[in-house]
Amino acid sequence: MSVSTAATESPVCAPLPVLGRDVRVPLVTGEEVVYAALDYAASAPALQRVWDEVAAYAPYYGSVHRGAGYLSQLSTDLFEASRREVADFLGCRADDQVVFTRSTTDSLNLLAAALPVGTRAFVFETEHHAALLPWGRRADLAVTCLPAPRSHREAVETLERALAAREPHGPALVCVTGASNVTGELWPVRELAAAAHAHGARIVLDAAQLAPHHPVDTAGWDVDWVAFSGHKLYAPFGAGVLAGRADWLRDAEPYLAGGGASRSVTRRADGGVDVEWHTGAARHEAGSPNVIGAYAIAAACRALTEAGFRNLVAHEQDLIDRVRKGLAEVPGVRVLSLFDEEPGSATPSRVGVISFVVEGWNSSHFAAALSAEYGIGVRDGLFCAHPLVRTLLGADPGEPGECGAPDAPAGGRRLDAIRVSFGAGTPREHVERFTAAVRELVRDGARGSYRTENGRCVPDWAERD
Amino acid sequence: MSVSTAATESPVCAPLPVLGRDVRVPLVTGEEVVYAALDYAASAPALQRVWDEVAAYAPYYGSVHRGAGYLSQLSTDLFEASRREVADFLGCRADDQVVFTRSTTDSLNLLAAALPVGTRAFVFETEHHAALLPWGRRADLAVTCLPAPRSHREAVETLERALAAREPHGPALVCVTGASNVTGELWPVRELAAAAHAHGARIVLDAAQLAPHHPVDTAGWDVDWVAFSGHKLYAPFGAGVLAGRADWLRDAEPYLAGGGASRSVTRRADGGVDVEWHTGAARHEAGSPNVIGAYAIAAACRALTEAGFRNLVAHEQDLIDRVRKGLAEVPGVRVLSLFDEEPGSATPSRVGVISFVVEGWNSSHFAAALSAEYGIGVRDGLFCAHPLVRTLLGADPGEPGECGAPDAPAGGRRLDAIRVSFGAGTPREHVERFTAAVRELVRDGARGSYRTENGRCVPDWAERD
Repeated sequence: MSVSTAATESPVCAPLPVLGRDVRVPLVTGEEVVYAALDYAASAPALQRVWDEVAAYAPYYGSVHRGAGYLSQLSTDLFEASRREVADFLGCRADDQVVFTRSTTDSLNLLAAALPVGTRAFVFETEHHAALLPWGRRADLAVTCLPAPRSHREAVETLERALAAREPHGPALVCVTGASNVTGELWPVRELAAAAHAHGARIVLDAAQLAPHHPVDTAGWDVDWVAFSGHKLYAPFGAGVLAGRADWLRDAEPYLAGGGASRSVTRRADGGVDVEWHTGAARHEAGSPNVIGAYAIAAACRALTEAGFRNLVAHEQDLIDRVRKGLAEVPGVRVLSLFDEEPGSATPSRVGVISFVVEGWNSSHFAAALSAEYGIGVRDGLFCAHPLVRTLLGADPGEPGECGAPDAPAGGRRLDAIRVSFGAGTPREHVERFTAAVRELVRDGARGSYRTENGRCVPDWAERD
Repeated sequence: MSVSTAATESPVCAPLPVLGRDVRVPLVTGEEVVYAALDYAASAPALQRVWDEVAAYAPYYGSVHRGAGYLSQLSTDLFEASRREVADFLGCRADDQVVFTRSTTDSLNLLAAALPVGTRAFVFETEHHAALLPWGRRADLAVTCLPAPRSHREAVETLERALAAREPHGPALVCVTGASNVTGELWPVRELAAAAHAHGARIVLDAAQLAPHHPVDTAGWDVDWVAFSGHKLYAPFGAGVLAGRADWLRDAEPYLAGGGASRSVTRRADGGVDVEWHTGAARHEAGSPNVIGAYAIAAACRALTEAGFRNLVAHEQDLIDRVRKGLAEVPGVRVLSLFDEEPGSATPSRVGVISFVVEGWNSSHFAAALSAEYGIGVRDGLFCAHPLVRTLLGADPGEPGECGAPDAPAGGRRLDAIRVSFGAGTPREHVERFTAAVRELVRDGARGSYRTENGRCVPDWAERD
């Protein structure tokens, strides 16, 4: 799981054009600045090229599958071609299946619903809730939640021990992230896949934070399924992907009951209904598919592939280095990392997702000041990975704290952080403005006061709009 | 369930501009014509205005909810405002909840997953598979499938008898369509809702085919939930809606497990995970929401409301009258209706969805000829309502027949039909071309021969593109 690139040698490529790159937003001072979108890990702007391709296709949009008209057949062809483009983008095996879902969350819930009877899932407590929570929802399923590892090696060893010790030695699934949505750190996917298979388990890769930043090699890493979201891959049109092994999906009950998934429905003499379900991807795609969403994802795959991940990684590594260097220079700022640094590693060990805390600052206050005084959009909170953030902050992963509650619990310390994240569309100016703003805020404080309103921290001294 | 309009008195309004209205498609003759999209019941083109509003918003797209930046807060505000606009559009009660889903199918599956323990669902066999199949998927649930009624009165009486006879007299849900996706006929929603409530049941309205054509009055009709799809409401961006009573949704397990739905996640000392879930709409919207899809639906609601359903219904009624009159004049064409005609009814009794069969013609052949020789896009098959189509064709609803199989079963008759459907964006020329084409095809036959390829009927005598 490495990219053959040397950031210091490659010319840093320019950012890819994204929608909103020229949008100006008001500051509380009355000035306007170009918005610095630094919340890519939550949702990235559309690539201009994705938008242009969607706009070019939209007049040709038509009902897919049984529509006999020209646009229906064109749309059906494009929809099915999008599947193949996604499979290529992910480096899938020839017989892998690509199911279009609505998001990574949806993809992982689909896989959870498709697990064979009695499957035990193994998941690190460091996962995003979408990867942490879906696995034990059926009475016959079980979940083993593994403690946070402090190195790649510890992750592999922890997993191996747990898989070996499982009782009974039945079907098992490992779910692991490719890149943390909190720290941006890469996980040893290839090694975890080998460990899973050595112990008769399968593995699904949560590539939500990986796929936009780094090539995915499903077959090469030998992972069984990959899930990702269009809206983090510069294609925010409501679609996601689950790609991988066909067998468990084919043997499972359809994810949704409805048209498209059903091949034949007949009324029985006793008043009941018999259904014969499709066996391919359609089995789990009941209802009219999100054709524009799928097409947008395929367009994003094309755009990233053609830009070249070597260039994209080099561009992003330059930004990562600037942010980390900038934050390291500010007293009281602590960047959160799970893994011990591996000194001398020539390959990138993280994607453009960096979380930190600032001593003496409420994170939501800091994030609000970055927005109101500098036009910079970051995120604060627990990032839908509560146990991980608590662990990173040195708290017990069971310590209470509520996502969406901007005020500290009475008598307690605040358990949250600030996250800055970026990618292919981010110009260097945005991260430079960000590091300068952090430095200035810590040195001089916010220029105004802020209050909490409807769960948001907002400036007190002027109306936002 | 009537609209106070008299089609003969109102001036027929012009069609609303839709994307693709100028798209030209090739005919097998080598000519090109403007495409006549007459498969609205499967998926409608985007209103130009919906597209324009999405395009205007897209550069301002940002991550919603915990994003601290200006665009995140703007996007969050627009997303939540879209909920309120949908609620207004549907005539919801003040305390109803609007959940954004991916489609009607998804909405009904969500409600099915949220049913209280031991609920029995009552559904007519005439429903679309999305409304027919989701209800009995949990072991504690049961479904009563009701035979096709031949009048509104019979529908109400059949339902009342079944509800009264249920044993035990536990929680019950009635699912009914507002307008059939096969015949376009309106169903007596208000009366069925009264029957449901009189017998201690709740009712969900499948408004997939109703909402694009006809005002929905959730509170006035006293239906408990309404489901519809954006892609049939001129907003094909992958989103749908479930709107209605909050209590069953609040008490149910979250539809998907993941971020957004979880308020707090803590690791227990025993290694397990405790989750506190949100109680509002967010409970069932895990994962990043489809903001553009929701915004597009709200834009469509605004556009239809401002155009005025009085005008839209009058426009559509003119088209319906022309199609029905045109088809009635062609020998061997039989339009499919479930209900006996109610002569003298001044109010519209159907929406722009009309299915028919042509004596001596394979439906897929007929639909292929309409496309290849006239540039008209219709649909053939069983329309994801297999028992209904078989009943309408005079077959046993249990008679086999496969959706997607264009060839007749060996030795059997073909069980399928052709469906033409249209709406707010349809110009009169499209339906006039359609009726003329039907007349000509029946009189003169197709000009070329057709073959079946990959499940499609395609012209044999030239390449389509």
